[in-house]
Amino acid sequence: MGIITLTTDLGSKDFYQSALKGSLLSLMPNVNLVDITHEVPSFNISYAAFVLKNAYPYFPKNTVHLIGIDSVYSENTKYIAVKHRDHFFVGADNGIFSLLFDDIPEDVVELNIMQDLKYLHFPLVDIFVKAATHLAKGGRLKDIGIPVAEIEQKMLLHPVIERDIIRGSVVYIDTFCNVITNITKDLFTKIQKNRDFTLYFRKSETITQLSWHYNEVQEGEKLCLFGISNHLEIAINKGKASGLLGLHLGDIVRVEFHP
Amino acid sequence: MGIITLTTDLGSKDFYQSALKGSLLSLMPNVNLVDITHEVPSFNISYAAFVLKNAYPYFPKNTVHLIGIDSVYSENTKYIAVKHRDHFFVGADNGIFSLLFDDIPEDVVELNIMQDLKYLHFPLVDIFVKAATHLAKGGRLKDIGIPVAEIEQKMLLHPVIERDIIRGSVVYIDTFCNVITNITKDLFTKIQKNRDFTLYFRKSETITQLSWHYNEVQEGEKLCLFGISNHLEIAINKGKASGLLGLHLGDIVRVEFHP
Amino acid sequence: MGIITLTTDLGSKDFYQSALKGSLLSLMPNVNLVDITHEVPSFNISYAAFVLKNAYPYFPKNTVHLIGIDSVYSENTKYIAVKHRDHFFVGADNGIFSLLFDDIPEDVVELNIMQDLKYLHFPLVDIFVKAATHLAKGGRLKDIGIPVAEIEQKMLLHPVIERDIIRGSVVYIDTFCNVITNITKDLFTKIQKNRDFTLYFRKSETITQLSWHYNEVQEGEKLCLFGISNHLEIAINKGKASGLLGLHLGDIVRVEFHP
Repeated sequence: MGIITLTTDLGSKDFYQSALKGSLLSLMPNVNLVDITHEVPSFNISYAAFVLKNAYPYFPKNTVHLIGIDSVYSENTKYIAVKHRDHFFVGADNGIFSLLFDDIPEDVVELNIMQDLKYLHFPLVDIFVKAATHLAKGGRLKDIGIPVAEIEQKMLLHPVIERDIIRGSVVYIDTFCNVITNITKDLFTKIQKNRDFTLYFRKSETITQLSWHYNEVQEGEKLCLFGISNHLEIAINKGKASGLLGLHLGDIVRVEFHP
Repeated sequence: MGIITLTTDLGSKDFYQSALKGSLLSLMPNVNLVDITHEVPSFNISYAAFVLKNAYPYFPKNTVHLIGIDSVYSENTKYIAVKHRDHFFVGADNGIFSLLFDDIPEDVVELNIMQDLKYLHFPLVDIFVKAATHLAKGGRLKDIGIPVAEIEQKMLLHPVIERDIIRGSVVYIDTFCNVITNITKDLFTKIQKNRDFTLYFRKSETITQLSWHYNEVQEGEKLCLFGISNHLEIAINKGKASGLLGLHLGDIVRVEFHP
Repeated sequence: MGIITLTTDLGSKDFYQSALKGSLLSLMPNVNLVDITHEVPSFNISYAAFVLKNAYPYFPKNTVHLIGIDSVYSENTKYIAVKHRDHFFVGADNGIFSLLFDDIPEDVVELNIMQDLKYLHFPLVDIFVKAATHLAKGGRLKDIGIPVAEIEQKMLLHPVIERDIIRGSVVYIDTFCNVITNITKDLFTKIQKNRDFTLYFRKSETITQLSWHYNEVQEGEKLCLFGISNHLEIAINKGKASGLLGLHLGDIVRVEFHP
């Protein structure tokens, strides 16, 4: 029984999401459908990439991940399917695939299973469903598309390193209002070299300890840690950090390592 | 493996939705449950009808659609099961079935699987679950109810046609804030006869082109098109039309075809 | 095919919920996952207990209920698995299990399937997933933990009885804005002894009839009844009682039985 996951901005109140599911079940009655999320803010491919990038490795090999964000047809639109690290991905080549992987995806095909894309009304149903079920049944990439060498590139803001300082920014705020930055554990560790540090944010807030668990400080106290996503995260033990600390998407944070 | 879909106003934060699913799984362990939506505004049968009407045709034949809206028992309540276009539907005969189909449903039975409805506490679980699993297992309508000739009628506001003018109204606003009217593509085409047109709404807004895709105008520009539901829809490319254009449920729109 | 239900405060917009599901499917590809809810307010174990307590009896015997609330590791944290009334439960022993059952749970083990809990990053995935899939496959409690005699106790505010008066409080407000108190049908009936009563709430609101259905009063009128949870509930027929009547969590209600 193949698994297809769904990452979309379709929400849960309209008929779009269930039309997609009904179409998948019509082509593959025994498919196992799992929602990654349907609450991606409309057209927000970097949000969708962050969520799916962190979710997909937990799924079994050969899972197919259908991405339904910003996939309306236009003349330059390519619909692609990708194999990478034993997972499959289907979506519009709008830049999201460059955000999803740290390395170059292993196999990429441009879908050629439909002749005339111009009058596609509902690409998720009309073309992604066919590609995703084909792959979930064990079908091959080359039977649904032709290999392409390049994918659309989209750049995320990367942290800037300047001697003993990392300047990063807030890239995600989760349900618990934890504030997640673009500073990864790998980068932090590489620059830190076991030195003490001060994390600066807002005008004058600082944190100088790295916690392992959210509850290592008193309730209501701020802390920083590497969360489940392995990104540096600013949180408050049992509190809503983004609101209480006034941190928003895009805000700058600075880590200074001490001599 | 039978499929049962769920359309309710139960939300996702209480135990009601999962009690319903647990009950279905207790009677049919291998049933495939698919949410249409649980976010129907409380008791809003026209909302539920719009969503389910547009969703159900995407599902495989013989899918059973359980409708859990406005189903509290009263003396005049009938609980019915319907077969139409190779799909099954179970719900309270509160008018929703007249909104769900454009034609007269093929087979309708009043459920007689419970003796005393008066003390029903949770009709979805106590009676709909039995009917839906019976049908999902391939059971016959006549084994769970007695044929009825009529269903409760509820009228939607239909567009009014006056020579070369169609006067319609806004019937749905989706997650993307696209504004969906009750003017169908069939009606529009029939009156248009290939003529140019002007769509009027609010005080002085007009649109004179029919787009095929949302991205055929510049980002932030308004457009109209026949959306996935084949209803005339007012949208803004990558923008939230209902808010930006000040359009609400029930607002009047007017299409004038030019001589 | 085993069923695992999920009760968490993880929400639906992040990758946490799907990471949990992917992990479960990785260990048990044919598991049937059912959401109880992921909308528990952060860390709110009494909310989670109310929902799961009312939902779980609807599920088939041997269903495994995974509880992902307030489960961050600390020195005193125990992760436990419980068998009770032919259902299994897995979670952190943070007091929720004492709220979930009216009687003492039959079998309780402290999970010993991981050596070093201290560096657990994501207990739901790292330990609950293993325990839950073990049980869903028919495994025994004693193979994943050692019996413990006591569980953490947490007290809910219970109603106070004073001669012919029950003083209770609002413990839950549902999606329909029905106001649910901690006065159970059993308690009410026991004290009532078929007498008339007056239910007092807010400054001067009263109700003197017990309804069976929400629609036994006119639309917009208030009523009280024993809802699906068998708790005394204050509602408005097709109206949002909590807002319209100004009732909030924790508010006191009083039932006086007449001589």
